[in-house]
Amino acid sequence: MRIRDVIITPVAFADPPLLNVTGVHEPYALRSVLQLVCDDGLVGLGESYGDEDLLALARKVAERLVGVEIFDLPAVRRIATEVVGGGIYADRHGLTGGVSASKTLQTVFSFFEVAMLDAQGRFLGVPVVDLLGGKVRDRVEFSAYLFYKYAAHQGLRPDEWGAIDTPETVVGSARRMIDEYGFSSIKLKGGVFAPAEEVAAIHALRDAFPGLPLRIDPNGAWTPATGQWVAKELDGVLEYLEDPTPGIDGMARVAAYASMPLATNMCVVEFAHIPPAVAAKAVGVILSDHHFWGGLRLSGSLATLCETFGMGLSMHSNSHLGISLAAMVHLAGATGHLTYACDTHWPWKTEDVIVPGVLSFEGGAVAVPDKPGLGVELDHDALARLHENYLSCGLKRRDDATYMRRYVPDFQPNIARW
Amino acid sequence: MRIRDVIITPVAFADPPLLNVTGVHEPYALRSVLQLVCDDGLVGLGESYGDEDLLALARKVAERLVGVEIFDLPAVRRIATEVVGGGIYADRHGLTGGVSASKTLQTVFSFFEVAMLDAQGRFLGVPVVDLLGGKVRDRVEFSAYLFYKYAAHQGLRPDEWGAIDTPETVVGSARRMIDEYGFSSIKLKGGVFAPAEEVAAIHALRDAFPGLPLRIDPNGAWTPATGQWVAKELDGVLEYLEDPTPGIDGMARVAAYASMPLATNMCVVEFAHIPPAVAAKAVGVILSDHHFWGGLRLSGSLATLCETFGMGLSMHSNSHLGISLAAMVHLAGATGHLTYACDTHWPWKTEDVIVPGVLSFEGGAVAVPDKPGLGVELDHDALARLHENYLSCGLKRRDDATYMRRYVPDFQPNIARW
Repeated sequence: MRIRDVIITPVAFADPPLLNVTGVHEPYALRSVLQLVCDDGLVGLGESYGDEDLLALARKVAERLVGVEIFDLPAVRRIATEVVGGGIYADRHGLTGGVSASKTLQTVFSFFEVAMLDAQGRFLGVPVVDLLGGKVRDRVEFSAYLFYKYAAHQGLRPDEWGAIDTPETVVGSARRMIDEYGFSSIKLKGGVFAPAEEVAAIHALRDAFPGLPLRIDPNGAWTPATGQWVAKELDGVLEYLEDPTPGIDGMARVAAYASMPLATNMCVVEFAHIPPAVAAKAVGVILSDHHFWGGLRLSGSLATLCETFGMGLSMHSNSHLGISLAAMVHLAGATGHLTYACDTHWPWKTEDVIVPGVLSFEGGAVAVPDKPGLGVELDHDALARLHENYLSCGLKRRDDATYMRRYVPDFQPNIARW
Repeated sequence: MRIRDVIITPVAFADPPLLNVTGVHEPYALRSVLQLVCDDGLVGLGESYGDEDLLALARKVAERLVGVEIFDLPAVRRIATEVVGGGIYADRHGLTGGVSASKTLQTVFSFFEVAMLDAQGRFLGVPVVDLLGGKVRDRVEFSAYLFYKYAAHQGLRPDEWGAIDTPETVVGSARRMIDEYGFSSIKLKGGVFAPAEEVAAIHALRDAFPGLPLRIDPNGAWTPATGQWVAKELDGVLEYLEDPTPGIDGMARVAAYASMPLATNMCVVEFAHIPPAVAAKAVGVILSDHHFWGGLRLSGSLATLCETFGMGLSMHSNSHLGISLAAMVHLAGATGHLTYACDTHWPWKTEDVIVPGVLSFEGGAVAVPDKPGLGVELDHDALARLHENYLSCGLKRRDDATYMRRYVPDFQPNIARW
């Protein structure tokens, strides 16, 4: 079974004005949808970022994939290695840490790896979870991922969530999300307001949801000293504190002081970062993300690595569609050492490219699909619509900071600002 | 596709009187052959140690496997965990390091994991290497594994190798093995004679085979000081020095002094040993062995772990038959970060349980089989013969030391004896 054609479709889907340390989400989030068209019309699906730099690299890989056997993942890695050639895809927003040639390679490879595994599973008639070692859990738990947000995008009417900018509105958004999805843990994206305000929001969540594990993620917005202060203020309240401050050294300074483990998807974002992080005792939980950790198989090895070094494992999310959610669910379904509920931006989106029905949240969890491959199907009309969105919105890369200046003209993204 | 029957057959095959630090190989080496009989008569094959303690544990697992789906590796792990229940299978000879409940579990699980993967591959029509991520190499290189040996087993005529107990006979055995198999690297099992004699044998090998990488493995027979002395004597001669001395602390003392990396299959034999070994900078190369590292999938994760921490990876061997060789070849075929030729006892045996022809050595390497599963078939007549060997030889566990006393009455296995 060989690849006969490769179709990469950039898409854009409506996204609310969610706030983070680098700015605010633009009206559309960008993704790329990959179709590996194989013999007999079998199609393997993949999904990754939609930024133009990544698209350019992926298209160069795609040109060379025709004729490759669907089990020949090493060939895909060779081609990706040659195409990337030491180059760097910079996501620019910095929300998943630094960039490097090796991280770029893992990101490009992963896009294709997932689609290859989907093709393999469809060809063999087995779900991807079985290709990853079999199901250790039937359902994958996710956390309620709360954001501060503006009421409306520039020039548009307020969305149905309205403004979220106080402890009360944070609690309100949590209640709504939990009512609808059944989540049993909560994450607040911080780094937006002064640390004391965000600490107050966490305390309000603790009061409103006494039994639910809580996390806060300011994306490195704080100094180590502020991170230590927050750790003390939230002692006994958080299950983990995510990226309080940038860098392994800064994280280590907070970790030495904090009662709860520190989690990261910013200072440890590739395998080479693990030895120094271990040596510095900087990190207690790695937030894996198959999109930049080199795909589903290497993410499984990352789990073994975390278990070996006594670190927990959770899962990071960027704004994504259903193909990525399916990949996350299959991976989590096969990963024994997954010690926390995963993150997902899922509740914030209103559009998708997949046929609905397969991935649904019950009690905050998604059942691992039993169908061959990832178990999701493309809705070609929806794909065309979201591609039209892409063409008409004019966005070519994620840039929360520039858009933020339409709300706050002098805004500067500023890690460790507090 | 479910398991309908599980057949475990202990076998014994003729083994020459090979010497090591714990004694001498008995006239028969013991192995267990596993058949997972599935729906439609499909059979998945596995192979592991033949010691009675392991057999007892494996048989308890086997009783509970009927009805398990062939992709449900997590169910096999759960059953193995319950059966092992914190118990310890002690291989007693100590040549693969210490024993523990976790290593016992990984050993028991691995026996079944390989057979499950073979069954999956046969069911799906794909070779096991494709289930492990695809072929990074078509051929897997092995080293010539030399032993000191007696000319004959007690009461028997000399075998065709004769005595190997001098630099000249070591070189002669290497020449014969290389002529027949084409190996392009050489390993000498040491720990038998005084270190100076074994160093002289390595120098003789260097002189006789100037271009070939060399290794020596005394199985921890030396003190750290002697290990340092050997490292100095063989500076620039060895590609790695294997287990010169017991324990992570002792290895670290040698490693700090040695110019070549130290390799081990004794002081790092499970994932929990890696963090202290990394912290102590004790080990440069891990000699993986899927039989006790938890199977083929976890051995793949071990490779990622070694790459992450800047350690090399090679592959350890005990006396084994063709099912294990096939598993080793599929694993090595899928493992990018495999930085040395693998070990194998293959040239020392004259019998097997598989239909010959699939696994052959050319230029010291074995081609990764392309057939479904492991790609090897049981020869049922041969299996019956080797099971008869097992019944008639009376051996129930490997015990090189007791047998050694028939040659050297006061022999005591004595790690760090020199």
